Amino acid sequence: MVSGPSGSGKTTLCRRLADEKEAHYSISCTTRLPRDGEVDGKDYHFLSRKDFQSRINAGEFLEYAKVHENYYGTLKSEVVDQLAIGTDVVMDIDVQGANLVRSCSDTQIKTALVDLFVMPPSEEELRIRLTGRGTDAEEVIALRMRNALEEMEHWPEYSYRLISATRKEDYLNFKSLILAERLRVSRLQ
Amino acid sequence: MVSGPSGSGKTTLCRRLADEKEAHYSISCTTRLPRDGEVDGKDYHFLSRKDFQSRINAGEFLEYAKVHENYYGTLKSEVVDQLAIGTDVVMDIDVQGANLVRSCSDTQIKTALVDLFVMPPSEEELRIRLTGRGTDAEEVIALRMRNALEEMEHWPEYSYRLISATRKEDYLNFKSLILAERLRVSRLQ
Repeated sequence: MVSGPSGSGKTTLCRRLADEKEAHYSISCTTRLPRDGEVDGKDYHFLSRKDFQSRINAGEFLEYAKVHENYYGTLKSEVVDQLAIGTDVVMDIDVQGANLVRSCSDTQIKTALVDLFVMPPSEEELRIRLTGRGTDAEEVIALRMRNALEEMEHWPEYSYRLISATRKEDYLNFKSLILAERLRVSRLQ
Repeated sequence: MVSGPSGSGKTTLCRRLADEKEAHYSISCTTRLPRDGEVDGKDYHFLSRKDFQSRINAGEFLEYAKVHENYYGTLKSEVVDQLAIGTDVVMDIDVQGANLVRSCSDTQIKTALVDLFVMPPSEEELRIRLTGRGTDAEEVIALRMRNALEEMEHWPEYSYRLISATRKEDYLNFKSLILAERLRVSRLQ
């Protein structure tokens, strides 16, 4: 389970791990409409509001949240089906979702769970990454910065923290964490 | 802290980590005489029995044991002096020594401590490794096997377990463990 503000590089790390077949990338569900180029089952599972609601009622979500007028969430099946066949699962999830996952009572998920917080090396570097191509309004960037800084206060709730450096170093550290956790005795017994 | 029976390859892993300057290799003390080619301060700190005894009385040992007529032990200073300057320390230690290190009350050592048990992939492979060049008597090999199998029962007492495969894979896993543990939040705070 990987959290971190936008600009931390966490999504790149998760995607690369999945690309290298080291883990299944957990696909979230959402009720919002697909944007241009987004593919159902790859970027998200796009669900109708009715379908999403009935899955909430059936207790099928590991975590979910309502953001503005849309629902976002992770199905338990998305995780446990993979764990059952011995495949690790990587989840890119925000701090609120992470809290919900931690409180999950499923033994298989609890045993497998490892949480990592990825953060940028400095506030200046974060600002550079969030400014992007420089086409966004000052206030939009300021809001992103506030959100990122607020999210970053939660790193002590995680077991591991990675301060991002270069892509190569970050991935080496991330991959190391995966390999190391596979050696953990509490998970082998 | 790395344990494992002879033939597990643990010493090779520890030495390589030190050779690559990733950690200081903790040198044990002993009262036995140096064998041909052994260098004081490199293979062991060779101490007189009187010196060893007075250091025991002064509480200078992190762990020590009497094996046959000789003492073997690790000085606290060998570890804490390195940790104080930000250098990781790798210790090649037996299961009895490991228990003594775990019960140590020094906060700096307790915070830094990670324990790994390295074991051969199978009893057959262990026998091959312990048979060596085939110059040893049947009974000597049988004794080594008994000792190794007995030591191997202790792996569940460790946080991590590595089942040795190739040298390359073993070192990748070992190094990963070191990198991952450097990201651990409980150690950063």
